Amino acid sequence: MTFDISAIRADFPILSRQVNGRPLVYLDNGASAQKPRQVIEAITRAYEGEYANVHRGLHYLSNLATDNYERVRAIIAKFLNAPREDEIIFTSGGTEGINLVSYGWAAPRLQAGDEIVLSVLEHHANIVPWHFLRERQGVVLKWVEPEPDGSLPAEKVLQAVGPKTKLIAVTHMSNVTGTIVDVGAIARGTTVPVLVDGSQGAVHTPVDLSALGVDFYCITGHKLYGPSGSGAIWIKAARQAEMRPFMGGGDMIRTVARDGVDYADPPLRFEAGTPGIVNQIGLGAALEYLMDIGMDNVAAHEQALRDHARDRLRELNWLNMQGDAPGKGAIFSMTMQGAHAHDISTILDKKGIAVRAGSHCAMPLMDFYGINASARASFAMYNTTEEVDALVEGLSFCRELFA
Amino acid sequence: MTFDISAIRADFPILSRQVNGRPLVYLDNGASAQKPRQVIEAITRAYEGEYANVHRGLHYLSNLATDNYERVRAIIAKFLNAPREDEIIFTSGGTEGINLVSYGWAAPRLQAGDEIVLSVLEHHANIVPWHFLRERQGVVLKWVEPEPDGSLPAEKVLQAVGPKTKLIAVTHMSNVTGTIVDVGAIARGTTVPVLVDGSQGAVHTPVDLSALGVDFYCITGHKLYGPSGSGAIWIKAARQAEMRPFMGGGDMIRTVARDGVDYADPPLRFEAGTPGIVNQIGLGAALEYLMDIGMDNVAAHEQALRDHARDRLRELNWLNMQGDAPGKGAIFSMTMQGAHAHDISTILDKKGIAVRAGSHCAMPLMDFYGINASARASFAMYNTTEEVDALVEGLSFCRELFA
Repeated sequence: MTFDISAIRADFPILSRQVNGRPLVYLDNGASAQKPRQVIEAITRAYEGEYANVHRGLHYLSNLATDNYERVRAIIAKFLNAPREDEIIFTSGGTEGINLVSYGWAAPRLQAGDEIVLSVLEHHANIVPWHFLRERQGVVLKWVEPEPDGSLPAEKVLQAVGPKTKLIAVTHMSNVTGTIVDVGAIARGTTVPVLVDGSQGAVHTPVDLSALGVDFYCITGHKLYGPSGSGAIWIKAARQAEMRPFMGGGDMIRTVARDGVDYADPPLRFEAGTPGIVNQIGLGAALEYLMDIGMDNVAAHEQALRDHARDRLRELNWLNMQGDAPGKGAIFSMTMQGAHAHDISTILDKKGIAVRAGSHCAMPLMDFYGINASARASFAMYNTTEEVDALVEGLSFCRELFA
Repeated sequence: MTFDISAIRADFPILSRQVNGRPLVYLDNGASAQKPRQVIEAITRAYEGEYANVHRGLHYLSNLATDNYERVRAIIAKFLNAPREDEIIFTSGGTEGINLVSYGWAAPRLQAGDEIVLSVLEHHANIVPWHFLRERQGVVLKWVEPEPDGSLPAEKVLQAVGPKTKLIAVTHMSNVTGTIVDVGAIARGTTVPVLVDGSQGAVHTPVDLSALGVDFYCITGHKLYGPSGSGAIWIKAARQAEMRPFMGGGDMIRTVARDGVDYADPPLRFEAGTPGIVNQIGLGAALEYLMDIGMDNVAAHEQALRDHARDRLRELNWLNMQGDAPGKGAIFSMTMQGAHAHDISTILDKKGIAVRAGSHCAMPLMDFYGINASARASFAMYNTTEEVDALVEGLSFCRELFA
């Protein structure tokens, strides 16, 4: 399939709206992506005619909903090229996935003094669950700093691994600098289990879990053009076998008695309660949409956007950018002397341009760069070079106002 | 507002569809309820024109989405007559709510030998999280049996409370027998904190948290005519103050550094990561829909359905019913000599009637009644007396086939 940006944009209803009297330029995709009509229609279709609770229904609608829901597991496995479909565990998003690993795998296994290696690039979702283990059971966090340009060489991560290291927790792609981490090289260089936060990576670059060699890889549905509350984590079967259940409730048990519980086999063991049925069905539609376009094509389009944006933004000699790693994705963190990030966001918003201002749930990285906040423009497959130009124009207007 | 069953049915698109060539008679509401167009439209509106991630966005769409999302907290507080809006914590459903209490409140407080009192009526969601505490830290589960008719007198629960009891976990309404439990009387009779599983109760009866005197009350959005992955738990501020965070990630922190975390104030402290934004917006639409009709009217309609169903089902002297408590809701668990519950469900399905067969995530209650499974007809506000009659006719057909 050829990459047809006009056709793609036409699939996203919100992109044709105006904000503050100007066409919407949505550059807040790192926080959450917009949804194509294929996803919205899948949700509507499910609720209007194909809805019931899933599993063990024995009536038509329940069987139909179960089929529609369970086939998403196969879609996710295909999207990530996972070796096994039953290694896909549905979650409400990346945060729940990482907490599942923290509570289900790490908490019962790690002792005081055991170490977790993590990078300063991490999102709070891949930090706070490990701080819990530090607070509650004396686990030691070992931090790996990126290079000044935001790159994170695999060797630097591997150098931090010692005899007490029990887990490496690292992002596939920084949500602030756009750095792409060679997580495969990290996994190849150690026998320590590797957890990858794929919340950004899986959106912008093809993922091949059969080749990467990592142990845990989580995705976030709402960043992947899917619905709120959708997502999954891939966990290698050998690691699943080491885990205890996280949340308790329906569907994750085989039998429940007054004096004991017998748990269901994975992946159901880790999926308590009625799942996010229609959310996951919508995620399936989003991933099929992405696979129809082709993740290689998505990545190529975004690389072109990145190159254009990098060239144009570099011309602004009054603009500071955090992160310029080779091969980075199309995410730009920016600060400007004399203008707070919040001011930049507010001014751009008046021109219909949505960027995020703040610490982007990455305070250790903000500290590393010596800033409290930045304005972030994060691109998606539906963005255009014209929108890059609108951003540059908007920033120049901020500069005039505040300089 | 008068209760107009035709108008209500017309609001639910799925109710006009056929199943197996017959009009759908959906009696599986205990598992999950169908959605009115008001909910489906709220979801579509959000994704088509008002979507972005919430909190600290500083651009138009983010502020709009935040307003739409955060106002649902007030809607839920109003629906439950909660004393304080900030006592409402968003969850993905009842299961996550109870696990939040188990991990956040009970796990760090209860010692080996401490007791949790719970009833044999409970759904696995209100059993398995407490079994975790038994398995992992030696907490003792004290079970209270219902009467043979399924009623659960408050005194019987209170009699099980001893000096080592740290929590009472009880359902507001059984998802199998329809028993409604006087949770207010339980709370008035003890100083021990009371957790109420309102997954069924809040759907079928008005709830007044300002009067009930309990400590924790969870609701499940998808049973309340709301979307997948929506829900909340009300936790009294005094109990919140005793809790540690459950899941870690974005939004639940104030600051994150390499050597420590400072947590946000409740309720955000207990809401990690990007929440189920559009799911909760849909739940808000569902609760406004219910409040427009009036929960008293809903309850009155369902009581009429219950009376009609009870009278008609009692005529079937070959049908066994589990539970006939005074004041019960319109949920009927049934078994038939010579026909497995799954057979009943399959035969009824051929006639377009959706009932659930199985243990209904309530195995201890199945054991209490000496059965492995039952067929369950669970009614909602959109069901009719004609549908009760269709059920009776379908059951009679099963009897002819299997007797």
